[in-house]
Amino acid sequence: MALIVKKFGGSSVATPEKIFNIVNRVLRDKQPDDRIVVVVSAMGDTTDDLVRLAKEVTSMPYGREMDRLLSTGEQVTIALMALAFQAKGHAAVSMTGEQAGIATSDTFGKARILDIEPKRVLDALEAGNIVVVAGFQGMTEAGDITTLGRGGSDTTAVALAGAMKADVCEIFTDVDGVYSTDPRVAPGAVKLKEITYGEMLEMARLGAGVMQPRAVEMGHRYGVPIHVRSTFSDEEGTIIREEYTMKANQYAITGVADDTNVAKVSLVGVENVPGVAHQVFQALANKSIDVDMIVQSIRTTDDKRTDIVFTITRDDVNLAKQVLEELGQSMSIEECVINENMAKVSIIGAGMLGQPGVAAKMFGILSDEGVNIEIISTSEISISCLIGEEHIKTAVRAIHDKLILDGRG
Amino acid sequence: MALIVKKFGGSSVATPEKIFNIVNRVLRDKQPDDRIVVVVSAMGDTTDDLVRLAKEVTSMPYGREMDRLLSTGEQVTIALMALAFQAKGHAAVSMTGEQAGIATSDTFGKARILDIEPKRVLDALEAGNIVVVAGFQGMTEAGDITTLGRGGSDTTAVALAGAMKADVCEIFTDVDGVYSTDPRVAPGAVKLKEITYGEMLEMARLGAGVMQPRAVEMGHRYGVPIHVRSTFSDEEGTIIREEYTMKANQYAITGVADDTNVAKVSLVGVENVPGVAHQVFQALANKSIDVDMIVQSIRTTDDKRTDIVFTITRDDVNLAKQVLEELGQSMSIEECVINENMAKVSIIGAGMLGQPGVAAKMFGILSDEGVNIEIISTSEISISCLIGEEHIKTAVRAIHDKLILDGRG
Repeated sequence: MALIVKKFGGSSVATPEKIFNIVNRVLRDKQPDDRIVVVVSAMGDTTDDLVRLAKEVTSMPYGREMDRLLSTGEQVTIALMALAFQAKGHAAVSMTGEQAGIATSDTFGKARILDIEPKRVLDALEAGNIVVVAGFQGMTEAGDITTLGRGGSDTTAVALAGAMKADVCEIFTDVDGVYSTDPRVAPGAVKLKEITYGEMLEMARLGAGVMQPRAVEMGHRYGVPIHVRSTFSDEEGTIIREEYTMKANQYAITGVADDTNVAKVSLVGVENVPGVAHQVFQALANKSIDVDMIVQSIRTTDDKRTDIVFTITRDDVNLAKQVLEELGQSMSIEECVINENMAKVSIIGAGMLGQPGVAAKMFGILSDEGVNIEIISTSEISISCLIGEEHIKTAVRAIHDKLILDGRG
Repeated sequence: MALIVKKFGGSSVATPEKIFNIVNRVLRDKQPDDRIVVVVSAMGDTTDDLVRLAKEVTSMPYGREMDRLLSTGEQVTIALMALAFQAKGHAAVSMTGEQAGIATSDTFGKARILDIEPKRVLDALEAGNIVVVAGFQGMTEAGDITTLGRGGSDTTAVALAGAMKADVCEIFTDVDGVYSTDPRVAPGAVKLKEITYGEMLEMARLGAGVMQPRAVEMGHRYGVPIHVRSTFSDEEGTIIREEYTMKANQYAITGVADDTNVAKVSLVGVENVPGVAHQVFQALANKSIDVDMIVQSIRTTDDKRTDIVFTITRDDVNLAKQVLEELGQSMSIEECVINENMAKVSIIGAGMLGQPGVAAKMFGILSDEGVNIEIISTSEISISCLIGEEHIKTAVRAIHDKLILDGRG
């Protein structure tokens, strides 16, 4: 007897027919004693359609009212799916985020789950129902509907699974698992049987798009295994969990990630006095501009001046220009150069810790391919190199094939 | 400083542009100190579209899940309208039936309002908001969304106005008020300035379609005036209230109603023993068949047999045939004849009470037109005649022009 949370995204439930297919699959896979919770998103393009409607009445499509509007999409899906389960002869009830006990902050549009009190869900399961829960939404203490932002349904599913101490949370997607790198870039990419929360978070942070980091964090916090698998096949996917259960699944390097949403900002000839870096990065933080890699280098010939080089996402380039222009009025900067044709290649693996040679190998491979490294940054379980965007595919392929495939024989 | 509830139906809010028009009108008409609650239905054909979706996954589109599905329509409208008010610079919040404190029975699809606790609405008004409330829905004690059935948004508006002790509940429709009869049938029909709850209920019961009876009952119960008026003009419409405020607005006869959704059932030669009528009507009631006019006549030549004649709606004819066939096996009925080509013409007026000559006048007018009366029934404030459907327009016109227009000089 297992307690399983299954999450299906918008493209899996885009039409009544597709909803019926999901219902058939869930019923086929269900063991007699299994207790099943299904978390769903809005059907297909519903959310985009609602945003379009809102833009016809307001230039400010956000806040409390916008969250209410968007939350209707999932309510339609849960009602239809519960009706479909009933039509197939299985007891089912639908629940909104509120009814499932999901309490959130009141930061509309990107609310954070504060607490989950899944009593109603558990009671309904006990009574023999399949419970269909609206993803992507919750309720504030004041009783207002909120939405959780991008990837919110994944977060709902994992958090609910955690709060109910489910055996597993299955995330059904259009890919069949987590790969060692993007198979479209490196055809040799292999599907991972297991990966740790930490590695998955680092993969997501460094550019791999399968799972939203917040959902992985929820899994980590509650210790619930997340099974990423395909909507379209029965094959096993990838299990994200605390630690590898099989030594055979663990390698020094788990994956290679690439990120092309990167711009390099070089502040050349900045006055080298205490507090300069703080001043720069505080100004950027004030505008919510995320800074990733940072290098500050002292010129040997002129120690009165320093160069500060860092990376931001390309989406933030215009905003950053404004901030830096203003900053140029209160501090001395010789030149500010922004290069948008950059990319970041990273290797991730909890097993790297004890193997200092890995970094050297990575740099060697890039050098062999004639790729210049502009910035290097490392974390406990990752190494990232900033390179020219034109080299990114070559770099991913070479690093993946020589470091991952060779390592697995 | 007035507290006003305004209700707009689905066709008035069918597009974002129409929603904007309503918002402009509400803001234009608002006095600085007015507190405004707007109750809205789902946009245009949304409800029909949702029903169609449901029918693609189930042959049983009703119950808890169906109510949840349908209730999303109004949630979309309230969110868009609140956003539109905000875009015009006025503070506004939307509320679901639940948030507006509307507690209902759990008879899904046609729930009854049990109680209203409008504290959140009053607080939001106090804080300077226009409050936009979802019509047609409420919440059970167990926390499940319900819908109120046909005309539910009118009921929401009037009940909410009553619970808040509003000064008036304005119902905006595609007609500009309540008429003395259907203007398409009798071009001389006049718009009524006032009408009592009792007369309006009787008009609705007898076939006039402007307001759902449940909404009028709510107005009656709470004593809140209901102003029926046009979405498309600024003209005053008709005020439904407890008593006439101006003698000049009250006549012996307020209106003429016609109803063609009528079938006559004749049970000929029924055994004349005690309990026969009870048996017949109990069997019909068991299948929720509403019986309207009833005549039982004792034959003078054979007092062992009686004829029972009554009317039902045409929608119930097939069901009634089944019931009567079954009944024919346990009791003796010589013949059962159902005539679907019948219609009912009625006159309504609280002022008729003291004027016994009115009935005779009505029968005389029908006789002059060569119309045969098959059944007559009366209530305190109405007289109805069952006639052949082919005569209904002539009858309405003649009665209206001779009894109402002549009476008003």
